[in-house]
Amino acid sequence: MKHDYSLGEIAAFLNAELRGDADVRISGLNSLDSAAAGDLAFLANPKYISQLTDTRAGAVILKSDQADSFAGNSLVLDNPYLGYARISAWFNRAPVPGGSIHPSAVIHPSVDLKDDVSIGPNVVVDEGAIIGSGCSIAANSFIGSRSVLGADCLIAANVSVYHDVVIGGGVTVHSGSVIGADGFGFAPNGEGGWQKIHQLGGVRIGDRVEIGACSTVDRGALEDTVVGNSVIIDNHVQIAHNCVVGDGTAIAAFCALAGSVKLGRNCVLGGYATVVGHLSICDNVILTAHAYVTKSISKPGSYSSSTTPLMESLKWRKTAVRIGQLEDIVQRLKRLEDNKN
Amino acid sequence: MKHDYSLGEIAAFLNAELRGDADVRISGLNSLDSAAAGDLAFLANPKYISQLTDTRAGAVILKSDQADSFAGNSLVLDNPYLGYARISAWFNRAPVPGGSIHPSAVIHPSVDLKDDVSIGPNVVVDEGAIIGSGCSIAANSFIGSRSVLGADCLIAANVSVYHDVVIGGGVTVHSGSVIGADGFGFAPNGEGGWQKIHQLGGVRIGDRVEIGACSTVDRGALEDTVVGNSVIIDNHVQIAHNCVVGDGTAIAAFCALAGSVKLGRNCVLGGYATVVGHLSICDNVILTAHAYVTKSISKPGSYSSSTTPLMESLKWRKTAVRIGQLEDIVQRLKRLEDNKN
Amino acid sequence: MKHDYSLGEIAAFLNAELRGDADVRISGLNSLDSAAAGDLAFLANPKYISQLTDTRAGAVILKSDQADSFAGNSLVLDNPYLGYARISAWFNRAPVPGGSIHPSAVIHPSVDLKDDVSIGPNVVVDEGAIIGSGCSIAANSFIGSRSVLGADCLIAANVSVYHDVVIGGGVTVHSGSVIGADGFGFAPNGEGGWQKIHQLGGVRIGDRVEIGACSTVDRGALEDTVVGNSVIIDNHVQIAHNCVVGDGTAIAAFCALAGSVKLGRNCVLGGYATVVGHLSICDNVILTAHAYVTKSISKPGSYSSSTTPLMESLKWRKTAVRIGQLEDIVQRLKRLEDNKN
Repeated sequence: MKHDYSLGEIAAFLNAELRGDADVRISGLNSLDSAAAGDLAFLANPKYISQLTDTRAGAVILKSDQADSFAGNSLVLDNPYLGYARISAWFNRAPVPGGSIHPSAVIHPSVDLKDDVSIGPNVVVDEGAIIGSGCSIAANSFIGSRSVLGADCLIAANVSVYHDVVIGGGVTVHSGSVIGADGFGFAPNGEGGWQKIHQLGGVRIGDRVEIGACSTVDRGALEDTVVGNSVIIDNHVQIAHNCVVGDGTAIAAFCALAGSVKLGRNCVLGGYATVVGHLSICDNVILTAHAYVTKSISKPGSYSSSTTPLMESLKWRKTAVRIGQLEDIVQRLKRLEDNKN
Repeated sequence: MKHDYSLGEIAAFLNAELRGDADVRISGLNSLDSAAAGDLAFLANPKYISQLTDTRAGAVILKSDQADSFAGNSLVLDNPYLGYARISAWFNRAPVPGGSIHPSAVIHPSVDLKDDVSIGPNVVVDEGAIIGSGCSIAANSFIGSRSVLGADCLIAANVSVYHDVVIGGGVTVHSGSVIGADGFGFAPNGEGGWQKIHQLGGVRIGDRVEIGACSTVDRGALEDTVVGNSVIIDNHVQIAHNCVVGDGTAIAAFCALAGSVKLGRNCVLGGYATVVGHLSICDNVILTAHAYVTKSISKPGSYSSSTTPLMESLKWRKTAVRIGQLEDIVQRLKRLEDNKN
Repeated sequence: MKHDYSLGEIAAFLNAELRGDADVRISGLNSLDSAAAGDLAFLANPKYISQLTDTRAGAVILKSDQADSFAGNSLVLDNPYLGYARISAWFNRAPVPGGSIHPSAVIHPSVDLKDDVSIGPNVVVDEGAIIGSGCSIAANSFIGSRSVLGADCLIAANVSVYHDVVIGGGVTVHSGSVIGADGFGFAPNGEGGWQKIHQLGGVRIGDRVEIGACSTVDRGALEDTVVGNSVIIDNHVQIAHNCVVGDGTAIAAFCALAGSVKLGRNCVLGGYATVVGHLSICDNVILTAHAYVTKSISKPGSYSSSTTPLMESLKWRKTAVRIGQLEDIVQRLKRLEDNKN
């Protein structure tokens, strides 16, 4: 668990220009103002540039022009934030899976476990599943029949993957998330109740996807629900049945895509953004937090709707009344305009 | 896992009029435009009627008047969508529970397991629980003390059912859901902290209820929280303590009923609909997505509130300012009107 | 499971003035209108005072002035609601942990289990964890490496606690919740994908915290995410990486704090309240349900924003159009005002 590297090693990995002492030892990452002598810090946001003066960091990742005004050890990169992100893996304290299968795991004999798979206590893997090489499945998780994990997936504790779910390589799924539960499909049965529509499709998830905690990706009604490559999904997200999420899209917490939404590539959804069923959103769309999309979007750009603006509660109560009177307000305005002419 | 039926068998089950070849083999369900020769398709939404011309489906479920213009094999029903829903069960690929108790399950000796119960690996069933005939409880789920499952329930993997929860027959609960956790009840303790109010009630869930993934139904403070028969609940839903949900009501993802809400029968709640505590909503109310109910509703109908309409973000920022000025806008309008007279 | 006490015992525990028969037996708590002869009821909200006349409760907790008009047995307290909350523990039907370690639990030999710890079936506790005295961890939960639980914590079934999470004493975590999953941190990798930022911080949770079901507290990016003492958190809540939540704050269901939010002490967040990343909210702030905080708050008080007011859906559709026209409405008003002068 001790991580301790020379600045020279780090510079080589990041392909960064090293200015200063290549032998200084680095044992952690930190922000400029919290860093100690053994820490590597970074300057990603120019508004913190004044912190360079007082930082006690052993070294700082920064841009070339910023390095000129810094006396300490530095690693010069065009994109310091990306450099920090890349080197963060070296200081990760998460336990490294040991490549063994815990004896309490219940793995159906038909399961195809590739090389170097780590399976934690009480994990259950059902008939016909395929677990790719280098995968790690943590305690108490469940992988359903015929589901497939590509290489190097990290499945955290208490994850549920239903049957016939295909997950690509390098995918992370955090605890409490559920992949492949039934989509919400019911037909009124004519007697005040509901006839369940069995969800016959599966889920396909691409490579290098990250899914946060307590998120859900439902299986398709007829065809599969699809999440593309390099999609990142935060906690408490709902991807309903038959959605298709394009490559590189980012989805923040509590977003919901209703059924059969087609979301483009490289979109960014702020928290609580929601999309009505069967709509299409083109590539490169930003939805700000709370945006509620009620018609398809075919032009890249940033779109918003929201709760009303934040006010003191007393003012808000009056404002709410006025919102309810808007139609009347417009009619009154119209009468004044008509009188004018 | 191979499902292959004659069209005649399907017609008999659906009580449909069969036009065409009763011997054609059907091995799947699909949409009109994706169907192959072995697939049964359906025409539920008239806007897809033009797809009848080109579909390669082996047979189509449709209405009588639509069948007249279709040359292929057809199953004629008044309600094709309901027919599709009913037959979907025949093509469900979910593993069929085997009726056995996995040796790794931990079942208290006092538990009453009825006939033909399937219990998966690492399931835990506590003292005094009763598991109805034909129930299936999947891997790593937990059923608390004295809780009761009626016949033919399907409890998916990683579900948590606390103590003293009574669930009816034919109920499905998806992974990650939690039934019977404590309601959110605390009294200020007068010292800046909170005195927990222990939640002494339980949860009662009716027959034929479906609960999606990562949803919660809290136990009651004094009396039980109650979910009626034939209620369908999507993912990420919160039913707080002492709510009563009427029969046949449908609740979409991320809806929240605060404590002691009484929701009528045959209501439909769109995604993110929320109801303030202690309110009553009568039967046959529709709440559109994001509706936020702040007073009781006693008249059936459709009700809405929402985030503001979707706009390009630049326009939205200006609009938000204007919402904040609404009281001022109305005063200005009033002055103009007063001047007029 | 039978709870049966004399009214005198209860009065002594609550330090209440007893008027009437100290020997009456009390076997349950209930509301005034539902109580039977063996029940203790309480009058917390003066609007229910008329129910005193007809209640069949064996005794009632009430205020001194209310007691004067009540003929039955009573326990007089300045704060009847707090009295009810305190005595509720005596009637809690939740199974009492037995202080034993279930043989199916998988506990790393290095784990430090203090006295009187109860560990349920299939619980997994990883290397180096410390479990405080009197803790109870229910079925199928997971405690990661080096994580620490203080004394007397209750961890419900199917909870996930990642590595390096420090939890104080007397903390309750309900099922499905996840403490210490990775914060949502990624840097664009310049090739249309995302470089994960490994989350090197942990989570620190104070004493007497309650966390509901299906809630998430993410680990910090560099430093820890911190939840203070006596914080109460409902179901489906998201506390993102590096948030700091002050002592005594209450957070209702579906609230979300984005990354690095600093929330003060004794705040109350109504359901669905959300706070944008990096903002600070001072002590004693109330956010009403759905409040969306887009700038820091430095003055105690009650703040709101919300969805639009609830209306019949037809009216709402017209109103939504008018909201979209607000900028135009203001311009029209301005023209009229200009013409006036």
